[in-house]
Amino acid sequence: MLKIYGVYKSRATRTFWLAGELGLTFEHVPVLQAYKLADPMAPGVRTNTRSPEFLAINPMGAIPAIDDDGLRLYESMAINLYLAKKHGGPLAPRDLFEDALITQWSFFAVSEMEANALKISMANAQGRLATEAGQAEADVASRLLKRPFGVLEQHFAGNDYAVGGRFTVADINLAEVVRYAQPYAPALEPFPHVSAWLKRCHERPAFKAMWQARLDEQE
Amino acid sequence: MLKIYGVYKSRATRTFWLAGELGLTFEHVPVLQAYKLADPMAPGVRTNTRSPEFLAINPMGAIPAIDDDGLRLYESMAINLYLAKKHGGPLAPRDLFEDALITQWSFFAVSEMEANALKISMANAQGRLATEAGQAEADVASRLLKRPFGVLEQHFAGNDYAVGGRFTVADINLAEVVRYAQPYAPALEPFPHVSAWLKRCHERPAFKAMWQARLDEQE
Repeated sequence: MLKIYGVYKSRATRTFWLAGELGLTFEHVPVLQAYKLADPMAPGVRTNTRSPEFLAINPMGAIPAIDDDGLRLYESMAINLYLAKKHGGPLAPRDLFEDALITQWSFFAVSEMEANALKISMANAQGRLATEAGQAEADVASRLLKRPFGVLEQHFAGNDYAVGGRFTVADINLAEVVRYAQPYAPALEPFPHVSAWLKRCHERPAFKAMWQARLDEQE
Repeated sequence: MLKIYGVYKSRATRTFWLAGELGLTFEHVPVLQAYKLADPMAPGVRTNTRSPEFLAINPMGAIPAIDDDGLRLYESMAINLYLAKKHGGPLAPRDLFEDALITQWSFFAVSEMEANALKISMANAQGRLATEAGQAEADVASRLLKRPFGVLEQHFAGNDYAVGGRFTVADINLAEVVRYAQPYAPALEPFPHVSAWLKRCHERPAFKAMWQARLDEQE
């Protein structure tokens, strides 16, 4: 049986969303990020990304990670590409060309957008977007996102989805990174086609179910 | 026919190396990074990553990019995974499990190592490794690389190669990122198995041929 390690308030959302789209049954192991604990190594503390039992699953100590009948895998984008291909259907690539493009967009999300989008998300999570320093930080991140968001804008002006004219795992992998920039309105405002595509993605029942589980999560 | 856009003094090395391993015939289009030119937009200036004709190939304006009989693709890691799968043989994944692991290591290289390894490479290329500021910078980068290099050390203590007991595209994608840290000796010294694996990779004729082309390249 598939095990997904990670909490809903983490990059694991992208894997929970995909699992929902695919209708997968899985065991959820709620491993928490160590930085959220005062002393992650203390005896009796809950399982976190620095616990020896989790480092045996992912030595990098990052979530999400999976164990799929013995295949241990980490790096969220690779996990999602694997699960989509294993279970097939419309979310998966249909041929090598689609595989190439879906993989390209997944790397694009990590290489060109994730670090800056996360800065906005973290500033928001830490309540700093209302401060002058937080706004300045979000403004710098948002200016650095202009080029990749412009690439997406051009793409979504002519396409409803990233690859193959339908919703695929590429849309999940992209949308979960673009979403991090949403708390700072000026980041997405100049890109109406990106905003419309993100809205389409977020209207999917599997996204909504994941988001509700995230809101309900007790840490 | 396959076209590879990019110069040898860039991330395109990973694609040139792979093309050599696979024995591919290709057309080389030597697009230069715009930041290396005083005025990349000036009339008559050579084709670079901000030239309109290259932005039509890769709107992100980054090298490498390819055109493979009409399939336009960018993001170097995605390009390498695609070319390996298209041409098959020992460098390609043999099944979905190997595909998952090869993809995982390729994301690992980008997410966990590339930004910090590049800092060392850039400090070296700009002649700053001999200065106190450059050394301090390389030292910070090298400390941030300790965790991912530790993961690789543990892996290569028990495995000659990244996946499947043989040299695959995963080794190219990892080695081309780990190489960036080589100019600062303290970064790799604590990791003898990583160093030995990197040496094995660099002894391959296709790496040596790529490296020679890089040394011979006129900008």
